[in-house]
Amino acid sequence: MTDGIAALSTPVQDEQDRFRKSLTEATSRFLSAQRSILETVSSDSAVLVDAIERLASGGKKMRPLLCYWGWRGAGGAADDDGVVLAGMSLELFQAAALIHDDIIDRSDLRRGAPSVHKQFETLHDDGGWHLDAGHFGTGAAILAGDLCLSLSEEAFASITAAPKRTAEARAIFNRMRTEVMAGQYLDLLEEAVGPDRHPDVAVQQALSIVRFKSAKYSTEHPLCIGGALAGASPSLLAGYSGFALPLGEAFQLRDDLLGVYGNPALTGKPAGDDLREGKRTVLIAKALQACSADQARTLNAGLGREGLSQDEVLELQRIIDATGARDEVEALIAERARASYKSLEALPLDPPCRDALSVLAEAAVTRVA
Amino acid sequence: MTDGIAALSTPVQDEQDRFRKSLTEATSRFLSAQRSILETVSSDSAVLVDAIERLASGGKKMRPLLCYWGWRGAGGAADDDGVVLAGMSLELFQAAALIHDDIIDRSDLRRGAPSVHKQFETLHDDGGWHLDAGHFGTGAAILAGDLCLSLSEEAFASITAAPKRTAEARAIFNRMRTEVMAGQYLDLLEEAVGPDRHPDVAVQQALSIVRFKSAKYSTEHPLCIGGALAGASPSLLAGYSGFALPLGEAFQLRDDLLGVYGNPALTGKPAGDDLREGKRTVLIAKALQACSADQARTLNAGLGREGLSQDEVLELQRIIDATGARDEVEALIAERARASYKSLEALPLDPPCRDALSVLAEAAVTRVA
Repeated sequence: MTDGIAALSTPVQDEQDRFRKSLTEATSRFLSAQRSILETVSSDSAVLVDAIERLASGGKKMRPLLCYWGWRGAGGAADDDGVVLAGMSLELFQAAALIHDDIIDRSDLRRGAPSVHKQFETLHDDGGWHLDAGHFGTGAAILAGDLCLSLSEEAFASITAAPKRTAEARAIFNRMRTEVMAGQYLDLLEEAVGPDRHPDVAVQQALSIVRFKSAKYSTEHPLCIGGALAGASPSLLAGYSGFALPLGEAFQLRDDLLGVYGNPALTGKPAGDDLREGKRTVLIAKALQACSADQARTLNAGLGREGLSQDEVLELQRIIDATGARDEVEALIAERARASYKSLEALPLDPPCRDALSVLAEAAVTRVA
Repeated sequence: MTDGIAALSTPVQDEQDRFRKSLTEATSRFLSAQRSILETVSSDSAVLVDAIERLASGGKKMRPLLCYWGWRGAGGAADDDGVVLAGMSLELFQAAALIHDDIIDRSDLRRGAPSVHKQFETLHDDGGWHLDAGHFGTGAAILAGDLCLSLSEEAFASITAAPKRTAEARAIFNRMRTEVMAGQYLDLLEEAVGPDRHPDVAVQQALSIVRFKSAKYSTEHPLCIGGALAGASPSLLAGYSGFALPLGEAFQLRDDLLGVYGNPALTGKPAGDDLREGKRTVLIAKALQACSADQARTLNAGLGREGLSQDEVLELQRIIDATGARDEVEALIAERARASYKSLEALPLDPPCRDALSVLAEAAVTRVA
């Protein structure tokens, strides 16, 4: 399994594959046990776990893999249940965030399949049930996300490492959750307030969203949680941050480009999805800084309009391109990627761990989906 | 402070008041620290904690008080940070559940004030922001609830008791969350499927919802978590369940009556709110079991209709009353209250603890709000 990214040497790839296998098996066992608990309440409620399992079994597993190599780089053993639980917890946290994010963003697709609220809406439609199917879908997905968030934490709390290490990893885990939720709120807020912001303030807000809603919890926190669990020194953890934070920002800036210019066949989402959702990304904020008053009116009027046609999406894409914002974001990605690689070089890591992190970094920055 | 319930002897009341004061202070300190973290992301995001604090500072504190007396009854010391943290965690869990429940139930009021999604909708309106205010309110409240759920868990994870005791309390805490979310899903499902259920099945489903959505986490689990943290024996925990589970069911059945017949001036919710929400409670299920085909049509057509007029609410109230369902539910409450009091008598508790639990039980069963 190469994950579609640059090849690792066979032993390192084998080790990574063993971790992925342990992660998959542990997640499957954990969710089966949860399904049994739900069935004691009512067999009807087991669909909540089914929805979580479908989501948690997909994806690239970037966060668990960063956690794993953060652990290994700090001297953790290759076979350890604790880091598997930490990886599972991160993946469940991500799944919970996606379930609720898709409600908030009104996204009907996730990884090319119906998002969780859409799955429940379909369940309602297929059953020919009463009252509003959309409302049922949203309500059920709120509950599925809540359950998933609780399970993420339950998995994390079951890690048995030395108390000091557990406490340090837990502190990062706690901060991660609070920051992500604050970052998500800021994202939602900017969609609503965006058009009234001064363009310079809008760029700063968009950069904060990149950092707190996405970068830290996608790369920095997983790597540092793995490190902390293995007893990493403060200086190693600081080095991890120096590598992972710019990497996470590059990852999210790439995501922002894909949200406007991505190929639907690869992203599993409609073209220009971020435009319909009205996301005030760095890309949009930069475009608004540089465009004419006429272009700004067109952009602001189109952003957040669910009914945007394909032609209107193309028009907005062209405006953004013409302002040079797309190139500017590519330059920000390149700059952060350079800073990240430079920090990686300075980290005191064995070759297998360095190679694995390097390949993960490359995949994060160059991805097309 | 008498909480509007039967009086305790002065020393017991003083002890309970000291615990409430510690709980209030600890919650305030904890949420202030969280606000500081949010402010490092953006001062704009601190409103999430404000919304949580408004909700968590209200209410009757029944769950923390049960936790406290469960702890004391198992030999826990009067002044202990652990049981304060457990109580705080339960109160934050309850707040998180209310925030999301109010979205799912489309409840605009909570304890006589706007519910959290309504508060955020107003923030949007007052700011004259862009896009849809209602959608902003829902999104922000989903995030506030997620944050609150995470904070509940963060508080719980910070309890430092003996490992075996912590593990036992944690097992109850984990099960509580999964069961509540499954019970909430069942509640939502019955609203949608309800009219097609056989009346006998509907009564069974409604009783499951009472048990899992409400009773266990309102009374049994808090009491047992307190007990487990103090090292309660399995037989004491079983005794706690014997007392608290029927009590919690009586509490929720009373809530169901208040949802249809409650006085809005006391409940802080519009009259007949549960009818507009379409809740398939035991009261409704029993009414449908006993009513005529004509009455069933009227009931099923009215349940879940947001625009129900005051007269239509009165008509539905009359139908339910006429079937004898209201008296039947009163009888179920009385039966469960008797079972609960009988179990309380058999518990090996010192008089202060027994008295405190007895007063809490009375308040739970006879409440009017």
